[in-house]
Order: sequence, then structure tokens, then C-alpha cells
Amino acid sequence: MVDLRATEQSRSPRPTLDRKRVYTSQFNAMARVDSIPPRVMILDTTLRDGEQTPGIALSTDDKVRIAQALDDLGVDVIEAGFPAASIGEQDAARKVASSVSRARVCGLARCNRKDIDRLLDCGLDYVHTFIATSDIHLKHKLKMDREQVKARAVDSIEYAKSHGLTVEFSCEDATRTDLDFLKEMHIAVQGAGVDKINVPDTVGTISPPAMEYLVKELMTVTKVPISIHCHDDFGMAVANSLAAVRQGAQQVHVTVNGLGERAGNAALEETALSLMAFFDIEMSVDTRKIGPTSKLVSRLTGYPIPPNKAIIGDNAFAHESGIHVHGVLGDPSTYEAFGPELVGVQRNIVIGKHTGAHSVKEKLSEYGVDITDDQVAQVVDKIKKLADSGKDVDDAELVALASHIVGQQETRNVRLKEFAVFTGINTTPTAVVSIEVNGEKKTGTSIGIGPVDAAINAIKSVMGNDISLEEYRLSAITGGSDSLCEVSVRVARSGGRKMMSIGKAVGSDIVQTSVDATMEALDRLYCHKKEL
Amino acid sequence: MVDLRATEQSRSPRPTLDRKRVYTSQFNAMARVDSIPPRVMILDTTLRDGEQTPGIALSTDDKVRIAQALDDLGVDVIEAGFPAASIGEQDAARKVASSVSRARVCGLARCNRKDIDRLLDCGLDYVHTFIATSDIHLKHKLKMDREQVKARAVDSIEYAKSHGLTVEFSCEDATRTDLDFLKEMHIAVQGAGVDKINVPDTVGTISPPAMEYLVKELMTVTKVPISIHCHDDFGMAVANSLAAVRQGAQQVHVTVNGLGERAGNAALEETALSLMAFFDIEMSVDTRKIGPTSKLVSRLTGYPIPPNKAIIGDNAFAHESGIHVHGVLGDPSTYEAFGPELVGVQRNIVIGKHTGAHSVKEKLSEYGVDITDDQVAQVVDKIKKLADSGKDVDDAELVALASHIVGQQETRNVRLKEFAVFTGINTTPTAVVSIEVNGEKKTGTSIGIGPVDAAINAIKSVMGNDISLEEYRLSAITGGSDSLCEVSVRVARSGGRKMMSIGKAVGSDIVQTSVDATMEALDRLYCHKKEL
Repeated sequence: MVDLRATEQSRSPRPTLDRKRVYTSQFNAMARVDSIPPRVMILDTTLRDGEQTPGIALSTDDKVRIAQALDDLGVDVIEAGFPAASIGEQDAARKVASSVSRARVCGLARCNRKDIDRLLDCGLDYVHTFIATSDIHLKHKLKMDREQVKARAVDSIEYAKSHGLTVEFSCEDATRTDLDFLKEMHIAVQGAGVDKINVPDTVGTISPPAMEYLVKELMTVTKVPISIHCHDDFGMAVANSLAAVRQGAQQVHVTVNGLGERAGNAALEETALSLMAFFDIEMSVDTRKIGPTSKLVSRLTGYPIPPNKAIIGDNAFAHESGIHVHGVLGDPSTYEAFGPELVGVQRNIVIGKHTGAHSVKEKLSEYGVDITDDQVAQVVDKIKKLADSGKDVDDAELVALASHIVGQQETRNVRLKEFAVFTGINTTPTAVVSIEVNGEKKTGTSIGIGPVDAAINAIKSVMGNDISLEEYRLSAITGGSDSLCEVSVRVARSGGRKMMSIGKAVGSDIVQTSVDATMEALDRLYCHKKEL
Repeated sequence: MVDLRATEQSRSPRPTLDRKRVYTSQFNAMARVDSIPPRVMILDTTLRDGEQTPGIALSTDDKVRIAQALDDLGVDVIEAGFPAASIGEQDAARKVASSVSRARVCGLARCNRKDIDRLLDCGLDYVHTFIATSDIHLKHKLKMDREQVKARAVDSIEYAKSHGLTVEFSCEDATRTDLDFLKEMHIAVQGAGVDKINVPDTVGTISPPAMEYLVKELMTVTKVPISIHCHDDFGMAVANSLAAVRQGAQQVHVTVNGLGERAGNAALEETALSLMAFFDIEMSVDTRKIGPTSKLVSRLTGYPIPPNKAIIGDNAFAHESGIHVHGVLGDPSTYEAFGPELVGVQRNIVIGKHTGAHSVKEKLSEYGVDITDDQVAQVVDKIKKLADSGKDVDDAELVALASHIVGQQETRNVRLKEFAVFTGINTTPTAVVSIEVNGEKKTGTSIGIGPVDAAINAIKSVMGNDISLEEYRLSAITGGSDSLCEVSVRVARSGGRKMMSIGKAVGSDIVQTSVDATMEALDRLYCHKKEL
């Protein structure tokens, strides 16, 4: 048996949580029991279970980039793939193994010699091998009996050990396996020389207190480190991982952004932060790299990060409601367990329906607008009236509103009079627009790389150099080619303090809608007198 | 004190879980303790905490539609909003209260008479009032001492009770409040006549075992029902709700899709299913309405449901990898805790990189393609080769591949030769295309409601009536107006068994890219001979 603790944990310490800057519940101390290990290893399976997410197919280059980011982040083991699945998987596993410097790299293999041979072909020195042990899987999937399964596991582990591999073994569907048989398996595979035993909650069907019971039972017959692999089918993956660690598990399987089969695996970011913040566990993870790694994986897999995702979502450190913004401006610990810089993301104060006076005053001071408390109250009142009718307020409109109330206003009327665009094969997309600015009609033409780009360039040619398009967003369209689309643009105007304005429009014609959104943004930038 | 159990629980029983069709871990039985109540109430706060999600602003009509769906789903209490926030909030609360028939409707109020008066103005008979009690909030936000906070809570509750309201009270930030003071608050508000006490984990910073400790302690001084309100900042919201119920909490606060401040609240769907499946708790929720309610809320809030979201995400019952599909086709319980029909969603077998022979055979039999095992192996081999180079395979391409291998093929070459489109103000978008079909050039023109629609209509006019565009998807664009967009179309061809094909294209010109995607789909439908 390889001494995993000696080989995998002999690393230089990474920056860890500064307890003084983490404001979690003091009751967590009551949950710290002697069975919690001082240090827990992370096996990241983004490249294996994560890649099994329907619709995700990572190229070898993508896998190498993600593996390097994980290595840099500080995970202990990277599961690089399932070499027996295809030549491409073998190629990726080989390249991943040769491009990381700190982490160990393992591959998945079913309990048969052929799968293990494929893994050896890739030059890996660590196998994660598994066979199902629950009666449901034995009957409906494997069509084998318990003795056959046990013999297969023992044979595969002996074969892998005889080739010098580090061996981690999983009883697939362990949480639905008969406890006596599960213990029998744990004893048998230890006899065969296994180095680590993983306990998968394959279908995500256990609760945290039940997980504590199970791991406590398994600890009585398991001398090698126990690892845990949880799925999120009931939203319990992270809590179950914690429960297992509380009873002595020394390794957790995770994926970045909680990717994985069905509802996914325990998310790396939530699991790592929870173990550190709740149980004071030492890990080799540099938390500041969590945000950037999460974004990289999102980009390469095409799976967006939900805004309300813990720790890494856009909303995790965003505050809009008056009560919350008031608190956060007083001291962030009122509504944040830790500062966003700890995990490499940003805080965001949002102006919207639930905004109160504190947010408004803070935002306006950023733009150098001096305003009395009475005037702030008037601004908040107008924002709420707009919000009740479903309209939101961006920074430019907020400044416009405030400027109007404090009597500093500037007016310019902008109106679209004409617009046409054409495009085709062997034709450079070309647009013409006429815009009335303060009653004077100006016409501009421009080309672009598409009809939308041409139209927006033509508008810019009329409005002059102080206008720039900072962002263009088109909401996803699902339905027919005549479905509604929503375009949102952010336009900036330089000269003095740079001012931003957002324009939005909804329509069936993508080009026309893009023009409408741009004109709305311009209108917000210039027309401060309109009745609100 | 109102007897809440009598008033809120005297309902006709709803369809509940059929234990024989739920395949969760048998170890959950070990976690069932005597303190678990037989029945738990659900307070849904999608319309209050959920609406505080940055960027979400629901109109009164939207709120009424969501409230009716929640009522129909069977939640016990609907928190309709925060009436003191604006006139619009008051209007919405009033309309919500008059449009639901089963659920009770409550509103949020800070601990002051003015907030409670606003709530009374809306005709509500149930208030959820709160004041912060943690030292962090007292010092940085309220700038009050403990005695002042306690006096304010007692006064507000007495005032609300004197107006006949049912009163639920929260110590905001309870999980970071000194335990002795928290108990003192619980005792004081019971003296003032409170009906229910909610325990908010406001900043989402507690772990499940610590939550069990806290609720157990509070139960010693609390005679009215305890409710729990959890946030997901560490991914613990659902597990913490379960932990509280395990120690005797009789109500859980939830939101649909886990919306809410920052990382959101405990998700209704996960919390309800977990309580039923793990603890055998009786609830008045009709689980079959969970899927449709989740979709409604997603649509009205504009917050998409992440594919890997537990229970209601597109992936929750999707299977792609060979091992999993093999299991699910044998018996769904191998990789599903329960069937998707239980929560009103669908199962999905996905063909992709990790597909094995079982999925392929199943899919092809749906299309009436007879194929031998050897031929299936050839198809799987080609799919894996395509996948390793980053290409995915839709049903039409799968059938084309298989037809080629079994020697049933049909060929038609389709090539775009010319294309042009123009649009503008006061101009009906018009397109012309020329397509070469089996060497013969055909030209068609069409109008549309936008340039993309016109172009696709022109293609349809050339290809004839057996072709229809079933779906058009445009990925969201973020960046500039010259950013790359990705278009995916699903084209159907009738005649014999209806066949679908997906075409995808990426480019900077939205119109040109849409045409390219449509041509690719047509190519897949007709050109079965191309080398793979």
C-alpha cells in the first residue's frame, strides 16, 4: 500500500482562510467533532464526471487548459477521463498527465483488465476503478451476483497493483448497497492492496445524517483513506460531502461549477469553502483562483454560471435591496460571510426596484453628483415608480434623474428618421441612417461585418466620436425565426466623466431591434428632460 | 395565539410520494428521529425574497400568476412582498391576497408600526415581521443595543396582534446571534403573543450539524411552531432546512428555483422532495406541478433554470454516457431516484461523446432502422471519432450514418449559390436565394418579419413543402455588435417517418449565419453519402 498521506500531502502550504475575516455562524464550532480529519484532499473530476454532462465534449486542448488551471488552483488529484472510452480520451489523459506539475492524475476504469491496460497505455500511474454493488445495479445492469462482483473487483485491483498503479476503488451506488455486503467489499479490496476507497452516492439519494451513519460504519472496517463522491439530485451533494468528512473521510470528489451526470457533482467552490469555513480544515487550495477557474470551465464547456450560484455566481456578492445595501455599506460582514476578493470575484451594488436611499447616494457620489437627503428621497421615489411599471434604471438614467432634480440638466433630442441595410453573399453589409439631433437631420452610412454591425456603425458616424458602443448583448432566441429577440446595448459618452447608458429593445427583426436599442441608449444619454 | 396547525393544516390530502416508486438510499431510515414532525408547512417567498434577486422586478400581474400557481401547487403560505417598500408592492400584495383560494398570504414588515400599517392597508391578515439581533447587525446596521431591539420587537408584535394579525417573527441573522440573547428574544416575543417564530440563516453561514444544535436549543424555550429560512451562500440551504426540521421545525421558507438575495434561498423543489423522500414527511404539495411552476417562474423572472439544477434542470433526467444509458434502459431506478413524471418533467436519452451501443440501438429502433450488433459497433465508432474532434451528432445524422452502414441511403446534393436580403424603416424585409439541388439551380424569394425570417422563408420556397423549420435558436451574444453568434436550427422533412435534422453555424453576420445553419441542416437531411 502506497502511503498516500506522505506522497500527496508533502506540499508547501497554500494561503488559507484568515479566520478573522470570515464571518460565519459561531454555532459551527458545536459541530466540530474529533473524527474530522485535520486535512482533506480534493480529487477533481471535472474532466471525467463533469465531461459526462450531456452536451459537453471537451477537446484535448480544452482538457489540458482546465487541468493546468486545477493544478495551479491546488487540487490534489485530477481525474482526467475514462481512457477505455475512445482514442481521444486516451490522448487527452496522456497530455493532461504530462502538463501538470503538482497534482496527481488518475483515470477511470471499469473492473476489467482491458480498461486498466488502456489506462496503462496512457502512461498514468493512478487508476480509479469501480464496479456496482447495489442489488438494483446487480440485477438490472450487471446481471451478476455478489460473489462475481467481489471476485472481479479483487482481480482488477491485484492486476492494477501488479503494474505499480496507485489504486482508488469505488463500490458504485454504495449508498444503496446492503451494508454488510458493502463492508465485505471494503475488506476484500483492502486484502487486494487497494490504496484508497471511494464511497459514491451515485444517484444522489442520501441525506447528510444518513451519510454520517454510513461513513461511521465503514470507518470501522476501513484502514485506507475513505473518499466521498456525491451527486446533487436532491441538492445535497456538498452537505453530504461535509457529512462524510465529519465522520472521517479524507478525500472529496468535486467538479468545477458542480458539473457532472444529471444534477451534477459536489461543486469544488462550495465544498472547499465549506470545509475550510465550517470545520477549519486545511486544504492545498488557493481560494483566490476559484473565480477565474470557474469562469474558464464555464467558457470551455459552454455551461453558463447561474447568477444565483453560491460563491461564484454574479449575484453571490451583489446587493440591491435598501436594507441590504445599507448594511453592506456600513460593513460588508452584515450580509457577506467573507469578502469577494477571497475567491477572486467582485462585489456589485445594483440599482433597481428594491433600492433605498443609501445605494442612490453612494452611486451618485461615484459620479460626482452632490445631492441633499430630500433630493435623494425624490430620486428613490421616481425609481420605485419606474420599477412598479416594470422599468429598471441604469447609472446614466439615475444621474439624469438626479441632475434633473438638483437642477443640473442638459438636453439634446435624438430621433431616428430613416434606416435601411442590405447584405448577401459577395456583398459587404451596408447601412444608411438619418438621425434628427436637436431638430437638425444628419445622415451617415457605414459598412460592417454584418447588418447589425453596419447599422450601429452608421449611427456612430452620425453621433460623432464621443459616442462608443461598449457592449452589445442579444438574448438567446428559442422558437422560430420570427420569435421575439431582446437586444441590450451599453453606450458610453466621453467628455468630462465617462457616462454609460443602457438601451433595450424587443422585436422580431434583429437588425431593427438592435437599432432601436441603440437609439434608446442615446436617448437616455441626452434627453434628461423627459417626463418620468 | 392562533392555532396554526388547526387553521393551516385542515386541508384535503394531496397526492404524495408512492414509497414503492422512490429508490433512495435505505440508510436514510437511520436518520429518522422522534423529533421530526409528521407534517411540515411550506412558506414560499418567491414573491418577496425571490423578487429581491438583483435584476428581478415582477409586475402585479406576474405576481398574481405566480401566486396562483403556488396556490395550485399546494404551498401553505405565500409571502407576497414588502408592502412598505412602494405603492406597487401594496397593490400587488392586495391583488395576490384576493386571487388565491387555499394558501394564506403574508407580507413582510420591519418592526415598526408604520410598516405594519402599510400591510394592514393591503387587507392582509398575516405579517412576517423581523428585526436583526446579531451583534454585527446591531453595531454596523441598526446602531441599537439589545434591549432596544427587544423592546421594538415586542411593541410591533403587540401592535400587530391588537389588529388581529397572525404574526410570524424573525430574529434577522439568528445564526450569528448570541445564543442566550436569541433565547431571550424567543421568550419575549412569545410573551407578546407571536404565533410562529422563524429562524433565518440570513447570510447562509451555518452548517447542517450546527443548525441541528441551534434548533434543538431553541426548541427548549419555544412553544409556538419554529420555522426556518435558509440562504445558499455555501450551498447548504436545503440541507440546513432539513437539519432544522430534523430537530422539530414545522415550517420551511423556500423559493421556486432557489431565487433570492445573493446565492438565493432553499429551493422549493429540492426541499419538498427531500423532506418527503428522506424523512417521509407529509406535505400539501402536489409534486407533479413542480416542473410547470418552475418553468413559469423562470419565464416571468427571466432567470433561466440551469441544466444541472436538481429535479427541474434539463439534465436532471438526461443520460448520455454508455454505462448510464445501459442501466436506465434496463431499469430507470439504476440511475434515477424517481421517475420524472413525479415532478412533471421528462426523461431524455442524449446521443453524444459518451454514447454507447445501447443508446444507439434504442434511438435507431425509434426511427425503424434495423441494424446488427456489428453495424451498431461501427456507428458508435464513428460517433466517437466525430466527438473527439468536437462534433456532436443529432438524430438525423445518426440515422444517416446508420443508413449508410446498413446500405440504405438516399442522396441529394444541396448547395447555396446566391443570397441577398434588405430591410429598413418602412421596408418589408425581403430575401432572394438560389440553391443548387442535384445540379439544378432553383431561385426563390420571400418576405419575412425580419431579415432572418425572410431568408429562411426564401430557402423554404425553394426546397418545397416537405421541409419545415421546427426551431430556431440563436445563442446569446455578449460583447460588441461584431461578436460571433451561434445559430442552431432544427429542420424537419415530412414524407414517410418525419425526420429531424439540426444545423449549426457560427459567424459575425446574424443573417448569413442563420442561412448557413439552415443549409447545414438541409445538407444533413439529404446528403447521406458524405465521408465521415
